[in-house]
Amino acid sequence: MSKFSLLDCTLRDGGYITSWNFSDSAIRDMIASLSEAHIDYIECGYLNSLECKQDSTIFQNINKIIGFLPEARNSFFLAMADVAQFKPEDITPFDGRSIDGIRVVFYKHQIDEALEFAGSVKENGYKLFMQPMVTIDYSLNEYAALINRIAELNPYCISLVDSFGYMTQDDFRRYYNVVDNLLNLDINVGFHSHENMQLAFAVAQDVLNYNTARRVIIDASLYGIGRGAGNLCTETIANYYNSLLGFKYNIQILMRLINDYIMPVRKTKTWGFTPYLFLTGLYKCHPNFACYLLENHDVSVSDFEKFLLMIPYEMRTKCKKPYVEELYQRFII
Amino acid sequence: MSKFSLLDCTLRDGGYITSWNFSDSAIRDMIASLSEAHIDYIECGYLNSLECKQDSTIFQNINKIIGFLPEARNSFFLAMADVAQFKPEDITPFDGRSIDGIRVVFYKHQIDEALEFAGSVKENGYKLFMQPMVTIDYSLNEYAALINRIAELNPYCISLVDSFGYMTQDDFRRYYNVVDNLLNLDINVGFHSHENMQLAFAVAQDVLNYNTARRVIIDASLYGIGRGAGNLCTETIANYYNSLLGFKYNIQILMRLINDYIMPVRKTKTWGFTPYLFLTGLYKCHPNFACYLLENHDVSVSDFEKFLLMIPYEMRTKCKKPYVEELYQRFII
Repeated sequence: MSKFSLLDCTLRDGGYITSWNFSDSAIRDMIASLSEAHIDYIECGYLNSLECKQDSTIFQNINKIIGFLPEARNSFFLAMADVAQFKPEDITPFDGRSIDGIRVVFYKHQIDEALEFAGSVKENGYKLFMQPMVTIDYSLNEYAALINRIAELNPYCISLVDSFGYMTQDDFRRYYNVVDNLLNLDINVGFHSHENMQLAFAVAQDVLNYNTARRVIIDASLYGIGRGAGNLCTETIANYYNSLLGFKYNIQILMRLINDYIMPVRKTKTWGFTPYLFLTGLYKCHPNFACYLLENHDVSVSDFEKFLLMIPYEMRTKCKKPYVEELYQRFII
Repeated sequence: MSKFSLLDCTLRDGGYITSWNFSDSAIRDMIASLSEAHIDYIECGYLNSLECKQDSTIFQNINKIIGFLPEARNSFFLAMADVAQFKPEDITPFDGRSIDGIRVVFYKHQIDEALEFAGSVKENGYKLFMQPMVTIDYSLNEYAALINRIAELNPYCISLVDSFGYMTQDDFRRYYNVVDNLLNLDINVGFHSHENMQLAFAVAQDVLNYNTARRVIIDASLYGIGRGAGNLCTETIANYYNSLLGFKYNIQILMRLINDYIMPVRKTKTWGFTPYLFLTGLYKCHPNFACYLLENHDVSVSDFEKFLLMIPYEMRTKCKKPYVEELYQRFII
């Protein structure tokens, strides 16, 4: 595998658009085909101890994923676990038949829980991916402290996560340098970005200029499907790497998957850059302020900007549906 | 004015979406407000000797634009002239009351005509912007020859034009270097890009790393409105320059213009990145193969890819409606 690699998160982040409803045959075909297209890492869905559904990329346990994986293991198969939703005791030992790794996602207030959970992931033999959400919410010192704690677990990868879609190339480089200075070169760095300010692709291109031997793993999804403004598109970054680095990602297969599984979703659902999501990025607010509000109200761009400006600074990164509604009722008085 | 500057082409390139129908009051407000937002160059519309309409950004003559310009001339006001649509004898002398400059747009087979037209632009006292469409269609040698011919006219600006939306940072740099080696430093370079492969913003960001004192002028439009996959967004690049360079583009004003004039258009019209337009970029085809075909036919992404692949190589950059239809009829047999 090259120093530059791609991780497709369609089945997981795209799930925010489909409520994780993908038919069993679609899940199977997408995983096998992404692998056939030489995508290096494939995120198959979420682990969630409490949910048990058919035709879904929410998996109640690790063994449930076995039936969806192709025989040929040319890619690494992953699932995401939110520390609040999957119990560490539900992690069954790695035996080579299910996923290869677990992406542990957590907020800043969940660090202790996340590290404990991560310990179980390692003990059970999985590749450990650490995904601290809203990375930019950590000061560089706080981030260094986090990295040092994570380092003790010897993870496979730590990701820079731009949950709100406003990190520039410069921002990524600053956090990357912390990792690069503190971690062994065999620990990879991931990039998970969102398109609120259309910055994702430029960051992914800039990564090629990084002066390091460390492997970077770029997250992307087919046609950018994902919550809010969506993700970097797998097809655009894969083709860019093909053109610039001579890689052999199979774009035809990616387009066939878009045709078969993403375009039908696009008929009724929407995602991607809008002026509303740009404004959430501009004012460093959680994008759900736009998503939740526009679900129930017809709000103009100008009114939405005024609405964002009345959110107390400390509440801008916290977004619960009832709070958005309560705030809007105050706004329209 | 800084080394890095922005040109808003909403009223001209956005016209492909609105058939250039903007109300007179909208045109007036947009020009004045973009100028108030400190946008450096504002393209007011097209010059076209044959058309005469109200509530339109197609202007039959240069003096017609006077009534739309604000008194304070804090920005440069421009119009585009297609050498096939505006007669050089219709260029009236510059007197400081109408536009400051004319953007001369031409295809490779129109170079002689364009240079003659450009001579009239200069003779009449306007800033001359040269816009050779599909810049990548010129070999670097051909491009150098073109630049040398243009140099004799001492233009204000020459633009690198990615009409089909597939030029990468590296491509732009290669063509830029030709200009940079051949032209006096006081001649500016423009960048006009499209979003077929989502490359525009990365190119505009990379420009900040260019090792030159030459001024660059980046084209953009509000919410990216423009034909096919649209343009770089004025609001995203303006905010990026504000963040990185401490510029003072007024983003609030840009958002108000999007609210008042672009969102109403968006209710019935669409533009921006799609898998279809990605495919036109991938196979280096004119994006109108997607636009024309999808106007009249419901074609899947997979069928569209097969359709593009049957276009003879030499016809991929040439796209007329009847040809697209004829080809499609052959395709579906």
